[in-house]
Amino acid sequence: MPTFPTLNPPVRVLMGPGPSDTHPRVLQALAKGTVGHLDPYYLEIMNGLQEMLRMLFRTKNQMTMAISGTGSAGMEATVVNLIEPGDSMIVCVNGVFGGRMLDVAQRAGATVTKVERPWGEVFTPADLKAALASAKPKVVGIVMAETSTGAYQPIEEISKVVHEAGALLLVDAVTALGGVPVEVDGWNIDAIYSGTQKCLSCPPGLSPTSFSPRAMDVIMNRKTKVQSWYLDVSMLANYWGQNRVYHHTGPINMTWGLYEALCLIHEEGLENCFARHLRNHRALKGGLAAIGIKYSAQEGHQLPMLNAVTVPEGVDDAAVRSALLTRFGIEIGAGLGAYNGKVWRIGLMGFGSRPANVLLFLSALEQLLAEQKYRFTSGASVAAANESYGKGA
Amino acid sequence: MPTFPTLNPPVRVLMGPGPSDTHPRVLQALAKGTVGHLDPYYLEIMNGLQEMLRMLFRTKNQMTMAISGTGSAGMEATVVNLIEPGDSMIVCVNGVFGGRMLDVAQRAGATVTKVERPWGEVFTPADLKAALASAKPKVVGIVMAETSTGAYQPIEEISKVVHEAGALLLVDAVTALGGVPVEVDGWNIDAIYSGTQKCLSCPPGLSPTSFSPRAMDVIMNRKTKVQSWYLDVSMLANYWGQNRVYHHTGPINMTWGLYEALCLIHEEGLENCFARHLRNHRALKGGLAAIGIKYSAQEGHQLPMLNAVTVPEGVDDAAVRSALLTRFGIEIGAGLGAYNGKVWRIGLMGFGSRPANVLLFLSALEQLLAEQKYRFTSGASVAAANESYGKGA
Repeated sequence: MPTFPTLNPPVRVLMGPGPSDTHPRVLQALAKGTVGHLDPYYLEIMNGLQEMLRMLFRTKNQMTMAISGTGSAGMEATVVNLIEPGDSMIVCVNGVFGGRMLDVAQRAGATVTKVERPWGEVFTPADLKAALASAKPKVVGIVMAETSTGAYQPIEEISKVVHEAGALLLVDAVTALGGVPVEVDGWNIDAIYSGTQKCLSCPPGLSPTSFSPRAMDVIMNRKTKVQSWYLDVSMLANYWGQNRVYHHTGPINMTWGLYEALCLIHEEGLENCFARHLRNHRALKGGLAAIGIKYSAQEGHQLPMLNAVTVPEGVDDAAVRSALLTRFGIEIGAGLGAYNGKVWRIGLMGFGSRPANVLLFLSALEQLLAEQKYRFTSGASVAAANESYGKGA
Repeated sequence: MPTFPTLNPPVRVLMGPGPSDTHPRVLQALAKGTVGHLDPYYLEIMNGLQEMLRMLFRTKNQMTMAISGTGSAGMEATVVNLIEPGDSMIVCVNGVFGGRMLDVAQRAGATVTKVERPWGEVFTPADLKAALASAKPKVVGIVMAETSTGAYQPIEEISKVVHEAGALLLVDAVTALGGVPVEVDGWNIDAIYSGTQKCLSCPPGLSPTSFSPRAMDVIMNRKTKVQSWYLDVSMLANYWGQNRVYHHTGPINMTWGLYEALCLIHEEGLENCFARHLRNHRALKGGLAAIGIKYSAQEGHQLPMLNAVTVPEGVDDAAVRSALLTRFGIEIGAGLGAYNGKVWRIGLMGFGSRPANVLLFLSALEQLLAEQKYRFTSGASVAAANESYGKGA
């Protein structure tokens, strides 16, 4: 009989593209006793969770819930419920996650029109006009916070042209939700999904989602069954709605975690939470600028919670990331796809978005850059970050 | 700003069809710090978890892993990876979960042949012969432990006729795994899935699965893409295999929980674990028999971990279940579908399968039956259960 090591995870500072640091209160919530998925107490917590999600998504959508899977399951749920075989869909691709949505849409049988922008850039309504006219899509999918590039996509103006063309708007808010304002009703978003492991200070495993009444009309009037039984929103609506009809067994303890995570956000206040993400982003950016490190996403469209920066000339990407992890316990993200070896992705998400992490990271990075003979003014990054905090920026 | 209640789940004794009681060590594991999904430590834990799952499934299958969703996601994963549109599939239906698999198979585009047995009964190889000859299926799906009826389906003989007909065998082991022997290699099972919330003493949220080399050949040589991106085993194989290529973000803390749960089973020893499930089942059955309560599944094919019994004549099903929950904190399951109002489903699963739960349940049940004027010899059930334990049965 082989023996297996006792579970003792190392203590990490999670500053990559997610998962981010789980808040201690959320860890404790995960460990609370399991109850049944039809237990009156569980149903009450589901109600509270839905209400808090509606506040976070800024929506009145009845069909607001957590899908029992990670953010990618949320992506699949929104796509396969809205799309029937042969439907036309436009997917906006400027990074890995737009590309993933395109793949999901094709597997759902959509006729997909791909609209592209270079990595790190964002879409304007003009970029979509020609495709909207020719494809006459049922759905347009777009990523609000492209985690592979750090680009921050404005949604409101895009939504207008999408709806003028008679299409539904589907938004990936995996990394956005909880870090920047997401106005589901204000921007007229029809379907949206997120993940728990980014700005919600919760481990990965659930996907908050919301569907507008218009999207629900489309779903309830499909000609064909949704290809996924597990993600079929018409059945999930019966479990998350008033009827509470058993569908699949809810992930009880992860639900405790998400509930606690949402309580934390509402205690802090949404606006305070967004301001905190921005403040720490500005301090980090100021610190990096002081030692000559530049952001790779388009200026003016950089995400506060996911800081994608260009690996400086002559610096060994993998060696720096590895030393950050092994010597300082800090995880940052490598570049994905086209950005492999060229970009670092530094997350300041949820509980992880705090001055202590910004200062620790800059100090550790300076040490490693010095060892790699990168030329910069020692201490400049930390001084600039502190100055940024001093300004109340 | 509305306020939301502090998370304080009531303490329950979970004796329904699952979730079952989570072991305290598993609860503590869930609360351990989150690390990244590509962290060397996480990859090491994934290796240990896969190795322990192989021991539990009794298989050498390389492709043995946990799907990031509940048991129903595991069902969907096994079906959609093996089935391409137009493929022939036989589904054996003798309860709710066989019916669910049929629905999943149809949504995957299979031409489905339904083979039926009455609820509570099991299939013999003879039941399949005609369908195998006429449908020439690519895949035959069957439920080993039908949680809706408590029927315990033998697999080995079925497997022989399925393979003689050139088909692959797909087995639902959601409730079986950890409670009774599951011999993936010995019985020649090609695809199998389970859930964490039954006999593994872990909360719901993950689905242990395994695919034989023959099943993997079929998957790697598909003509069409798997309809689900999230559940595509050809991509999951790259994350769970040597390459560790990012697919979706692994559910870190739930993985801690499952790892700890598997350690518990291996510390106890598989044979001891199965014997314990059987011992507590016999004590419960003896106790119920002493007060005239009968099992609803076919004699000789009753599951030790899921005891489906007929609600006695004149007893109010809902009132008893409700009082068990509110007065004693005990959850048992109602009948599903055709069994609604007629059957109680009493789980003795994983950590929940222990003498204390058997005795507590029988004592509480006697109290409630007496209040309902059901006629029986007071104390007889507990005495019979204790006698059963005394015999070392």
